[in-house]
Amino acid sequence: MSEQARPAMRCSVDRLARFISTAFEALGMPPADAATVGRLMAQADLQGSDGHGVIRLPSYARRIRAGGLNLNPNIHIAQERAGMALVDGDNGMGHLVMSRAAEIAIAKARVCGVAWVGSRLSNHAGPASLYARMPLAHDMIGLYFAVGNANHLPAWGGLSMLLSTNPIAAAVPAAEETAIVLDMATTVAAYGKVKTKAQRGEMMPEGWMVDRTGQPLLDPKRADEGFLLPIGGYKGYGLSLIVGLLAGTLNGAAMGRGVIDFNKDFKTVTNTGQAIMAIDPGAFGDIEGFKARVDEVIRDLRASERMPGVERVWLPGEQSEQKRNTYLKEGIPLPAVLVATLDAFAAEIGVPTLQRTAE
Amino acid sequence: MSEQARPAMRCSVDRLARFISTAFEALGMPPADAATVGRLMAQADLQGSDGHGVIRLPSYARRIRAGGLNLNPNIHIAQERAGMALVDGDNGMGHLVMSRAAEIAIAKARVCGVAWVGSRLSNHAGPASLYARMPLAHDMIGLYFAVGNANHLPAWGGLSMLLSTNPIAAAVPAAEETAIVLDMATTVAAYGKVKTKAQRGEMMPEGWMVDRTGQPLLDPKRADEGFLLPIGGYKGYGLSLIVGLLAGTLNGAAMGRGVIDFNKDFKTVTNTGQAIMAIDPGAFGDIEGFKARVDEVIRDLRASERMPGVERVWLPGEQSEQKRNTYLKEGIPLPAVLVATLDAFAAEIGVPTLQRTAE
Repeated sequence: MSEQARPAMRCSVDRLARFISTAFEALGMPPADAATVGRLMAQADLQGSDGHGVIRLPSYARRIRAGGLNLNPNIHIAQERAGMALVDGDNGMGHLVMSRAAEIAIAKARVCGVAWVGSRLSNHAGPASLYARMPLAHDMIGLYFAVGNANHLPAWGGLSMLLSTNPIAAAVPAAEETAIVLDMATTVAAYGKVKTKAQRGEMMPEGWMVDRTGQPLLDPKRADEGFLLPIGGYKGYGLSLIVGLLAGTLNGAAMGRGVIDFNKDFKTVTNTGQAIMAIDPGAFGDIEGFKARVDEVIRDLRASERMPGVERVWLPGEQSEQKRNTYLKEGIPLPAVLVATLDAFAAEIGVPTLQRTAE
Repeated sequence: MSEQARPAMRCSVDRLARFISTAFEALGMPPADAATVGRLMAQADLQGSDGHGVIRLPSYARRIRAGGLNLNPNIHIAQERAGMALVDGDNGMGHLVMSRAAEIAIAKARVCGVAWVGSRLSNHAGPASLYARMPLAHDMIGLYFAVGNANHLPAWGGLSMLLSTNPIAAAVPAAEETAIVLDMATTVAAYGKVKTKAQRGEMMPEGWMVDRTGQPLLDPKRADEGFLLPIGGYKGYGLSLIVGLLAGTLNGAAMGRGVIDFNKDFKTVTNTGQAIMAIDPGAFGDIEGFKARVDEVIRDLRASERMPGVERVWLPGEQSEQKRNTYLKEGIPLPAVLVATLDAFAAEIGVPTLQRTAE
């Protein structure tokens, strides 16, 4: 761990959520919405998705102050059938739009067995797993797809940046075991991870990015000079494209040429598109039987014979769950450089620092 | 191209379909079902999915003769809600089960906007794209997931073979452009490709398989001594697992420990699980507008600036479409070793050889 990555403080999830919501209120967001966004962003840090949590607060604020985000959106259903809805986010925070979309998907899946809700005029909503996990509380499977908010990926063999990290998340409930939760960019690394490396002053491992001649790019501060690599070569290119079509094009949201770089342009409406699907295993048969079968799969995988040198076989979502449990007890570790950034940000918008925010 | 891979003959898709359906009839399959399976298997070869077409005929036949497949299945809906169905394949040919599943998904999506149909007690159904493509004719998007019929993939870091190549396919309609069709195993190579290499006497490229110590495995005849590699390392492991849960576990079909190796065991019911989803873009807005936006994405990607040495940027499905068009004109190329195998097979079951099957 580099000097800059050493945690400067540990912060409870509630305190972190309060700090974030206070900041959004100070920026003009209605208190109930600010509380929702604060809670979801803090949940991201709590599960170790540190590229998608409080680290994003200053850039969200910058967008709000530039007039690039609607603080009083009329989030509404624009199209609807029994098994689907298209939610118009009216350029509100993505966290609000996709929480709403998840609720609708769950309610419709209860009737239809499955339901799909897309969004347009949404915004960055944090880690995909936050939303894929929402159906779990209703004993449902969640799937989530999103168009990334900046193009860092060309077509396979191409150089024009027309695709993004377009993530896929899936959450499957278990009985006694921890739910399986997969959350993955269709690129080898998510761009949030590149930004975290830059913020921490660390180099990237080979395989995350290449430059325009195909040579490995290791310095995250030079990220603009190259592009992310898709998983599995042309397969990841195909997956990213399909996710973009399903989460973006289908909803009339930005995809391809229409995606603006939200790290550089804070004013233009992003027209972010996402999609969430809820599947009710109870429609396919006995729900307890299903969850017991998922437990069996989990236990079989965990009990696998292992390659030499491998201490443990992990299930997707298990490491996040471990972090969640540890950080709930010990607090969320925040590196010094992030705390300094947040302190300066708090001073700038006139709210108490994290340290001075009540537990 | 090795000596063995040189085409011994070119065969029209209709002749190939007739050869296959005649063989299935000779094995006792009802003529209408044999015609359906023959047509779908020949379509696989026509689009270049040569690991999933006529090459499979002798092993399907072996299963039928071993009593491992039901020639007169009662394919029926076991569970149903407005937006979903679970089809019980009664151990019939997967092609029949999943054609039926696709029809149901399309009909339900017309009402609900989206629909998901899973299968259990199905069997190997050929290339995933065959079924993902079916909704295209109805201006719908198709998604398809399946549990592979033999475990060739361990958990990430593990050695126990608990997962399969579990493919994902997606088909998205366009207006003037060719529909986008992605069909990919969640492993770097599909096992069908390994079998094709073995049949052709060719070596595999590095990166397809490793042995149990992690060393590259290049000889496809030694495939039993190692395992396939997932795309993107732990990400592909996660994707394969999720596909297995959605296409297998959710449907009460085989997954993990329950998957038998259909290359070695021809008698035990495979209880194969698959899932197909149809999404009606017309539910999200104007269908023509959607297809025009897909055209734009395709054209932008194709017009990409290219990496040095790259002649063309391909869209998923474009190469299959080219093969389809070429093979429709020139016939489907069949390598000598495959023709010899099929000749011997035809003699064995007492049907005319491919050469003697009417055009």
